[in-house]
Order: sequence, then structure tokens, then C-alpha cells
Amino acid sequence: MLRCQKCGKMHKGFKIMCDCGGVLDYVEEFGGDFDSSLKREYLDVRRYLHFIPVKEEFLPHLRLPITPTVEREIKGIKVFFKLEYLMPSGSFKDRGTYVTISKLKENGINEVTLDSSGNAALSLALFTKSEGIKAHLFIPDHTSEGKKKLLKRLEAEVHEIKGSRMEVHKKAVSFEKGLYISHWYNPYFIEGTKVAAYEVYEQIGNVDYAMTPVGSGSLFLGLYKGFKELHILGNSKIPKMIAVQGKGYESLCEKSHEESKLAEGIAIPEPPRKEQMLKILEETAGTCISVGDEEISSALKELTSMGFLVEPTSATAYGAFKSLLEEGYFETGSKVLIPLTGSGLKNL
Amino acid sequence: MLRCQKCGKMHKGFKIMCDCGGVLDYVEEFGGDFDSSLKREYLDVRRYLHFIPVKEEFLPHLRLPITPTVEREIKGIKVFFKLEYLMPSGSFKDRGTYVTISKLKENGINEVTLDSSGNAALSLALFTKSEGIKAHLFIPDHTSEGKKKLLKRLEAEVHEIKGSRMEVHKKAVSFEKGLYISHWYNPYFIEGTKVAAYEVYEQIGNVDYAMTPVGSGSLFLGLYKGFKELHILGNSKIPKMIAVQGKGYESLCEKSHEESKLAEGIAIPEPPRKEQMLKILEETAGTCISVGDEEISSALKELTSMGFLVEPTSATAYGAFKSLLEEGYFETGSKVLIPLTGSGLKNL
Repeated sequence: MLRCQKCGKMHKGFKIMCDCGGVLDYVEEFGGDFDSSLKREYLDVRRYLHFIPVKEEFLPHLRLPITPTVEREIKGIKVFFKLEYLMPSGSFKDRGTYVTISKLKENGINEVTLDSSGNAALSLALFTKSEGIKAHLFIPDHTSEGKKKLLKRLEAEVHEIKGSRMEVHKKAVSFEKGLYISHWYNPYFIEGTKVAAYEVYEQIGNVDYAMTPVGSGSLFLGLYKGFKELHILGNSKIPKMIAVQGKGYESLCEKSHEESKLAEGIAIPEPPRKEQMLKILEETAGTCISVGDEEISSALKELTSMGFLVEPTSATAYGAFKSLLEEGYFETGSKVLIPLTGSGLKNL
Repeated sequence: MLRCQKCGKMHKGFKIMCDCGGVLDYVEEFGGDFDSSLKREYLDVRRYLHFIPVKEEFLPHLRLPITPTVEREIKGIKVFFKLEYLMPSGSFKDRGTYVTISKLKENGINEVTLDSSGNAALSLALFTKSEGIKAHLFIPDHTSEGKKKLLKRLEAEVHEIKGSRMEVHKKAVSFEKGLYISHWYNPYFIEGTKVAAYEVYEQIGNVDYAMTPVGSGSLFLGLYKGFKELHILGNSKIPKMIAVQGKGYESLCEKSHEESKLAEGIAIPEPPRKEQMLKILEETAGTCISVGDEEISSALKELTSMGFLVEPTSATAYGAFKSLLEEGYFETGSKVLIPLTGSGLKNL
């Protein structure tokens, strides 16, 4: 069942927003404990099927890997990079798309509309193509050439929109064909991204901090939800959640005067789930930090040196980690999770 | 221990060829059975550590995922695509590099030389960069721009050579710096690629056929070795091995007059392990088949439609599958493994 955050109304089926305009959460609880609920016969995303609201017969053909974690000790802090970019379309968005496609199939929906800065569109184009679902995709005209070429290869129906990310959003919302399924709202998307937390728990156990790039917040919200569910199941402690944003696009942090060009994937000034994220920052005693292009460039270079070929937006979290480290924010010996969200192979 | 295929001499340490010019095989046996030897606490390549000749303390920081398999029923045949392209550098070569780097570290070697059509160089550049090993890389000047850009981003020392793939090989062999570690010879590389067979066995169980693109044959040889080891351990049956080559570069099949441009990754007319591969074809009652650019293009398009963003060389195996299917080669209900070897994100 889906519950409206604003009016509390319950909904069934595929819906991304309440009639009152409130955003929806998926709220059904699953029983069992972590260990006995794992589907150990699977070494891919299906290992965690018990915890996500999908029926096995509606799963997409395409499967997601369990992404590896890589440990690096940096000035007394244990950093765990999670290689979320090793996904079929090259970004963590495939996690959300995977569950979304399952729910579309379950509900017999075969035509959809989405707006995206690039990665979510690419992910949806890939999965809809392979499942025979029609997709109308709205992207900014300044989306990277690499992503545009991939969309073309997928023979996707792409609408390139001039103007800001918010303009793209408006055009998609007012488009008349296809069910609008933006990941900014779509509660099932978060059911997919939360699986990363289950993997982390099985791979590493507890972590003290989790730092993610935040635009619309689908990874931030998913990780938090996963850690919270694990906590309710009696396992994981909930880490302090750290939201990382690009300068000039601080929906959660204090606004800066600079404007990041490199953090293109998270240039979203007004995410619909903003209040929900602010609550999580408060509840977990986390923080929000924004980074500029200089920090992003330097973080990207360091990540490359460590063997991570990622895109600039993915480097924001590591850039923020370096700043916080400098400030002495982390206790020595802390475990910090940094998901690396998007592949650098697409941005040549 | 390494044993020479030609003179039988045994060698220790890191060596890629016998003094007599023969190629070497890694021959040490590990005890135990499959089930109890799995390191189930790991959900990445380390799960199969018992079966590969590396010491945990020398493993690279960077870790490889267990790549997912995706099933598709095609005209009564069960095809299992294995997404080998979901690797840190975007190709299956990371498997061989992973073990190679471990052995280099174990043997205190910190300067190496390699020739490659692109993917192996990129893989080595990534891992040597993150481990602080110096690498001299020789590639053809017609290597795709995408791969060249990635090598540049990794600040690799690249020697672009005009001429055929064999010219590139000669230049690398005669280069005076760094230990020459070509994957054409390197026995440890095969110890890495064989892990794919262990994963397949755990994911699917037995398969009847395994079809791989074959240039130097590092994946073909690795898969066969893995399946054979599993068989000795009392588990897997050894599938019929099918070598797929690009037209004009048939080292194992009958030579054709056409010349494939798209199968650039396997354009190797004289692989050093040719005799070894011919023996495997005979022993497993497999076959060799070559494909031209038309079949490759059409296979690539179909793979894209199924959600696999791979490079043209990767599509050769599926192209060959389609031809064999047409001929009625496979028994109804057969299980056919097709590894998808290289990411399409690099070739935009």
C-alpha cells in the first residue's frame, strides 16, 4: 500500500502522487528476519526479493549485480566505496527502474513519461526497450553527448528541452501521453534504491555515516529506508545520513553564491521530497554539505587514481568527504559509506 | 607452479613463457569440494578465492562483482547471457588483470609492458594506476577513440602503433622497459578468467554449450579450465566449447575471404595458445565458427533490444549462436552460455 505523506490517504496500484498533491510512501511491512529472509540461492538483486514489493513473475529479464564495495583507509577513517556505477545502464538508477518496471508490468501499464538529467532516462530507456514498454523521455538539451548517443542507440523517444532542469520537469508533467512516473515522486523507485543498504549490511555490517549526492534524493531516501528497515528487523544501526549537493543547487544546505556546472546530475533546486529529507538529516543527526567544481574536479581525479571510472556528479560525495575530514568531522576509526553513483564511461 | 606445454619444465614465480619458447600453464591443484570451499561471506570475486592461486594480502584494492546472468528462451533454446561487461574497466579482462596484479605484487614486480587491442590495456591501466605499478601500453593507432580517451584519463603511458595487431605485438615484445606480461601468454590471466565458470556453476548449474569470442582466447581458455576443474571436483559437466571468431581472423576455423572490421577485439591471426584451443574443441566435441560484419551488426542490435549495451566484438558470439540455431545445431532445451564481454559505453 501507498500512504500519502500529507493527508494520510492510502492507495493501491501504481501511483506517484496523492490526489491532494502529497508524495507517497510505500508502507507495507514484511515479516521475518534478515538472515532467514535472504534468498541465498541468488547472487544478484533477487537475493533481497523478500524485502521489496515485487512479484517474481513480473521482474524484468535484465538483472542487476550486487555491486562490490572497496575499502580504503583514509587518514584513520575507513571509507567504503560502493560501486553503484557497475549497473547495466551505468548508474544506480537501474535499482529504482528495476522495481518500477516490475510494478508497471504487474499493473499492466505499457506507456510512460519521465524527465531526467540523463541517467534516469537512460536507465528507463534500457529497461523499457527490453520489456516492450513505450517511454517518452524528457531531458535538458545540455545533457552530455555520450548519454544522448546511448539514448539514440536505444531508439528512445527523446524530447530535448531548452532551459533549466525545472523547465524539463514542467514539460514532462504537462505531456499528454504515457503515465508520468518521475523518480522524483515514484515511491517504488525508492524501494529499488534501498536494496543498496541491504547489500551494504551483508557486505560490511554497520556503517557510521552514509554520504550520497542529493538531487531529487532517490538514493539518499532509499539508503535511509533500507537501513531503517534493517534496524527494525533488529540488525543494522542507522548511520548518520550526509546529503551532498552541488553549489548553487542547495535544496537542503545553506545556499551559496557559486554555481556548480559539474554536478549536473543533481542540479535540482526544489526536490518534491525535500521535507522528508530534512527530517532524515535531523533524525539521524546527519548533515548537509555542498561542493563546488574545484572540489569535484579534484575528487574525480583522486577517484580515478583509486581505479574508479565515474562521472563528475559521482565525485561530489568524495569531495564532501574530504572537506568534512579536513574539519575533523569524523571520529577516528569511523566507517563511512560512499556510493559511487554513475559510470565515467558515458562521458568521454 | 607453472608447467611448460612444450618441454614440461616447471617454473616458479611470475613468468609468461618457458625458456624453450613454450607457453606455460598454472598446474597446482587445490583440495576440497566446491560447496565447502566457497567463501560465502563474500559477495564478490573473493567468494572463489580458494580456487585461484592468489594470497589475500596481495589482492588489488579494486574488487570485481559477480556478474549477473540473464536468461532468454530463444526458439526452444535456453540462452544464458553473462554480463561480463559490468566490470570496473568495462570488460571481462578485469578478471585476468585481477589475478595478474595479485601475482605481480606477490613477486614484487612494479613495472610491466603489455600490448592490446584496447580492453586489456584499459584494464591494466586502471589496476596499475590504483596499485602504483608502472605500465607501458602498446595499442594499435586505430583503437577506438573512447578507449584512447579513457587511457588518457588514467594518465597511462600509451604507445600508439601503426600497422596490424601483430605489429603492435612485436613492438611491445622488443620494448626494453618493464616485464612483458601479455595476456596472450600470461598463465595467471587464465586463472582469473576461469572464475566466470565458477560463477556460472553457482548461478545456473550445468550448461551444455559455452560460446565465446576468441582472439587470443583468454576467456575461452579460462572458462574451459574452470569447467574442467569443477568437473574434477565432481560437479559440473564440461560444456561443448564453441569458439567464435571474426571473418578474416580465423585462427581456429576455416579461413574466409571476407574481413571483419567490427570484431576488432579478436583480430588476432596467430594466437600463441592456438594448439591448446584446438585440443579443447576436439576434447569437448565443440566447434569453431566465424562471423562477418553483417551478422555482428544485426546481433548487436538485437542485444541492445534485450537491454545489453555491449561493444561490437561482444556481439560476435550471439551472431554465431543465431547462425548455429538456424542450422539446427542445438538440441531443443539445450542450455547455452554466452558471455557478453565488453561494455558498449566506451564506444560512443
